[in-house]
Amino acid sequence: MSNIAEILQQIRAKNPLVHNITNYVVMNNTANALLAVGASPVMAHASEEVEDIVAISTSLVINMGTLSEKWVDSMVLAATKAKETSTPFVFDPVGVGASKYRTETAQKIMDAATPDVIRGNASEIMALAKLTDATKGVDSTMETHDAVEGAIMLAKKLNNTIVISGAVDYIITGDTISKISNGSPMMSKITGMGCTATAMVGACMAVEKDIHQAATAAMGIMGVAGDMASENSNGPGSFQMNFIDSLYQINSENLEKKLRIDD
Amino acid sequence: MSNIAEILQQIRAKNPLVHNITNYVVMNNTANALLAVGASPVMAHASEEVEDIVAISTSLVINMGTLSEKWVDSMVLAATKAKETSTPFVFDPVGVGASKYRTETAQKIMDAATPDVIRGNASEIMALAKLTDATKGVDSTMETHDAVEGAIMLAKKLNNTIVISGAVDYIITGDTISKISNGSPMMSKITGMGCTATAMVGACMAVEKDIHQAATAAMGIMGVAGDMASENSNGPGSFQMNFIDSLYQINSENLEKKLRIDD
Amino acid sequence: MSNIAEILQQIRAKNPLVHNITNYVVMNNTANALLAVGASPVMAHASEEVEDIVAISTSLVINMGTLSEKWVDSMVLAATKAKETSTPFVFDPVGVGASKYRTETAQKIMDAATPDVIRGNASEIMALAKLTDATKGVDSTMETHDAVEGAIMLAKKLNNTIVISGAVDYIITGDTISKISNGSPMMSKITGMGCTATAMVGACMAVEKDIHQAATAAMGIMGVAGDMASENSNGPGSFQMNFIDSLYQINSENLEKKLRIDD
Repeated sequence: MSNIAEILQQIRAKNPLVHNITNYVVMNNTANALLAVGASPVMAHASEEVEDIVAISTSLVINMGTLSEKWVDSMVLAATKAKETSTPFVFDPVGVGASKYRTETAQKIMDAATPDVIRGNASEIMALAKLTDATKGVDSTMETHDAVEGAIMLAKKLNNTIVISGAVDYIITGDTISKISNGSPMMSKITGMGCTATAMVGACMAVEKDIHQAATAAMGIMGVAGDMASENSNGPGSFQMNFIDSLYQINSENLEKKLRIDD
Repeated sequence: MSNIAEILQQIRAKNPLVHNITNYVVMNNTANALLAVGASPVMAHASEEVEDIVAISTSLVINMGTLSEKWVDSMVLAATKAKETSTPFVFDPVGVGASKYRTETAQKIMDAATPDVIRGNASEIMALAKLTDATKGVDSTMETHDAVEGAIMLAKKLNNTIVISGAVDYIITGDTISKISNGSPMMSKITGMGCTATAMVGACMAVEKDIHQAATAAMGIMGVAGDMASENSNGPGSFQMNFIDSLYQINSENLEKKLRIDD
Repeated sequence: MSNIAEILQQIRAKNPLVHNITNYVVMNNTANALLAVGASPVMAHASEEVEDIVAISTSLVINMGTLSEKWVDSMVLAATKAKETSTPFVFDPVGVGASKYRTETAQKIMDAATPDVIRGNASEIMALAKLTDATKGVDSTMETHDAVEGAIMLAKKLNNTIVISGAVDYIITGDTISKISNGSPMMSKITGMGCTATAMVGACMAVEKDIHQAATAAMGIMGVAGDMASENSNGPGSFQMNFIDSLYQINSENLEKKLRIDD
């Protein structure tokens, strides 16, 4: 816990510039969540400038929610630049497996640079694990249990950190597994909470070099803010508003009182 | 009414996947409205994948709010695929008549596949009716009365369902006309309520084969949620939040008490 | 003040059509802010139609927040058309100076048509002032004081109005400088408030020919609405909602009571 509070404190002290190449649906929410927690979001996707923007940013977030050809080109350019500049890079493979195009795009981006963190739901992580042949012999039923096994293999194969979001969030690095059990079912009733979680990983990686700790902090902040927001919400509309307020209000005291972590 | 409650119930039971190719302005609201009512939105527009996404979706929503060349190509591909797979398809001809490009695009999409439902405001429906020569001899003053006449001719010509949104919503199929008199003037003070109505038609068509009933249910749900939301709102900002909460809370009891339908 | 109230009144009476070519992140907020204050927003960016849309609009807002090649082409077309039709044109050079591409794009747009108003933060205005060689000899430290000097030179060089947003807003036309000291620090914790201010200039220019007065009214309305919104907000989420409600509620009485203007 104390480390999560410290990472949160660092974000607020340093206001790190987080470069997002993300989807149309969630851009506004993502930017607002980053601002509320204390980071500085920048959204830029043109091939003419993504490398310049990566170069001045502290971390890179790529989210493939609404794909098209030019955006994919820019994602590859940005990932390549992040590798070159050792800029922490988190990838959100939205909908991988739902179309051939998504699967090929995920592969292309991961070929350009291995993400420091990949965050997805159970089925996306399973799809990636299969894609990379990490899961030979693993059953494909997409149960969370299987996704955890797939994620462990994927994390080992890629030598990175895999985050599976769900009622319980798993943060997996090699044999280290941390679990966060916070958050509200309401989080699945508004669009873009997963995308926000990925951006939050970007904010935490911008101030904490230990990638596993950064990813764990991100999921902890998301979960506790979700708990806080659900207390006064009548539905997904008020939840979304309260969630942004909660990201602004969250502090070491809330974290201490509410965080349910198992690591 | 009872049928509307049943359609709502079916959406919540089945969480149908609704494929939206819609405009940048409203994507977030549309996705949240669909989630709040119980459907599963997917936003995907790349020509490389729209056919794959149509194939796994239960209905297709095309909204031409913010057009450009590649998006139009994808809309045509998606409509064509929907025709091939008999996927229910609703079209929102945003701003048709405001530019030559919009008029041509509407024509192109409707040539690819006749939409099961077209939803627009009075002036958009009049523009379409004229475009298709359905309204020869009809006055062009864009009064609702004329739009209804134009819509009747259009619905007969296309053999589909036309919805005109306004203070009173008209749902027109052949000689059958249903009217919904719910909703709040506040709905015209936030962007995208029309687009949300179109997406709601998509959600209802995904669970109800009778297209006229599906479209009527969508407008009834929108109107009653609008009434509910207006009760505690101080302006369009709080109305927007309350509207999403209302779509989440709406049930057979609210519908029974508030629905003003004339069919 | 009285003039600001009158401009506000005119917007509500005339519902002017304001054409926005703006960024993906803020489109929804911008449209809602314009609707709340009484204007009619239209978002259209395709090269095939921007000239048609400029032709039917009362003012043009170009914001380069999320750039790419085709959008830049359309911005240039729209600016050129606005010049031809003497449509009032306000430009928001988001992030100019952050990448070579942004700087070149700002130049390209300003070459197509000198904006009647340019609105930016201190660093953006400084970047523009340097770009146009208006600031030879001016120190580059981006302090507001320097930005004001740069803005004065820029306004004289371009013979237009420059607005610098900040804790104090400066509206500069030749030797005339107006200052607005309203607004809340919360405005910097949500994305797109600057973009909304630019769109508000568009709404005011649509009903007031005196460009300096229009820009001053826009910043006054933004600032007072910000003050009103901050009174009941727990964080940026509720502030954003309350801000839209405040734009809907603001009237001559609020303006009279709260406006802090120095001109």
